[in-house]
Amino acid sequence: MINLPQRTKERLIILERLIIQQEEKNITSKKLSALTGWSEDTIRRDILHLHMKAGSKSGYSTADLKSAIDSALGIDSSRQKHNCCIVGLDKLGSALLDDSFFEDSPFSLVAGFDTNVNRIEMMKSSFPLFATLDLEIKVPSMKIEYALLTVSDDRAQQIADRLVSAGIKGIVNYTNVILHLPKNILVRNVNPVLILKEMHAE
Amino acid sequence: MINLPQRTKERLIILERLIIQQEEKNITSKKLSALTGWSEDTIRRDILHLHMKAGSKSGYSTADLKSAIDSALGIDSSRQKHNCCIVGLDKLGSALLDDSFFEDSPFSLVAGFDTNVNRIEMMKSSFPLFATLDLEIKVPSMKIEYALLTVSDDRAQQIADRLVSAGIKGIVNYTNVILHLPKNILVRNVNPVLILKEMHAE
Repeated sequence: MINLPQRTKERLIILERLIIQQEEKNITSKKLSALTGWSEDTIRRDILHLHMKAGSKSGYSTADLKSAIDSALGIDSSRQKHNCCIVGLDKLGSALLDDSFFEDSPFSLVAGFDTNVNRIEMMKSSFPLFATLDLEIKVPSMKIEYALLTVSDDRAQQIADRLVSAGIKGIVNYTNVILHLPKNILVRNVNPVLILKEMHAE
Repeated sequence: MINLPQRTKERLIILERLIIQQEEKNITSKKLSALTGWSEDTIRRDILHLHMKAGSKSGYSTADLKSAIDSALGIDSSRQKHNCCIVGLDKLGSALLDDSFFEDSPFSLVAGFDTNVNRIEMMKSSFPLFATLDLEIKVPSMKIEYALLTVSDDRAQQIADRLVSAGIKGIVNYTNVILHLPKNILVRNVNPVLILKEMHAE
């Protein structure tokens, strides 16, 4: 993984997603600038970080650009996908169960957890659902790296602690609670109010 | 609104949420450091941006800190809340309809939109739901500033364009599509795969 400035990483992730949306074989920094609103200079500087072979007049090869971004972001599309789980299958959790989000991505949703055993027996999902009791067994045995945390606020910290003990690498936190986690655990806080505040303060 | 570095803003938003979780009247940078894992220096530097009166030995007053952060982030709690809507009331959109997320926040969910008129007639919500047809009327008349976009990918750009024409300031984009928007429109891309990629690349 190349050591990239945070903003560059964020832009590259967006660029990669844009490239997937395009059907052309090549794309210029001018086109990318028009699509994103970022300056051509910014885009060229971001792409320079990738140490690709120079783009031709017709622009960068979209396939090359995509794989260069993947490798810069530590994503190796030839290896197995990174396994993820959802913890908490109430309304939000079960909405995220729709794993079409994850198609063509380097991540794979492989398990869901909920304390309500009736609920997990009733729910439909393309991957297995377990009782939260089994979290300590399933996270390591299924090689789950990341969790989407959608439990209620009052249980968020406790479940996060259990995920950490079970060996999780990172948590996408949909709750309102700011989690207290060891420094080596990755976390993204994505509840709508925090996102709105960030956006509003821009 | 004070002009703050992006990372400082993001940390201040987290700090504010942490302060709300605390019950003490005062909080030290040491305690904030223990809770967040950020260094005391970082936290002190962030708080310096707020031009508060100096903290005492027992730390910063949590009430003062909260209101200083609010004002630095352009949030005036004495004025009316910022109105938000959800566009697309399929599984994810209807999960977000649960406006308990928005309690005690400077944002208020005031409307939901969906093309399926049967669906909006059947759904329960503490605020009105409208046909997407009415978007151009309701967004300005209800003074809606921000939209949570949870429509299907194939309609995302078109609906975003209509939101922009209707006068929206910002979009929280839950779809897989990178939207092409005028520069003055704020946007946050929060679909799970983009969030996981960002986290994984950290």
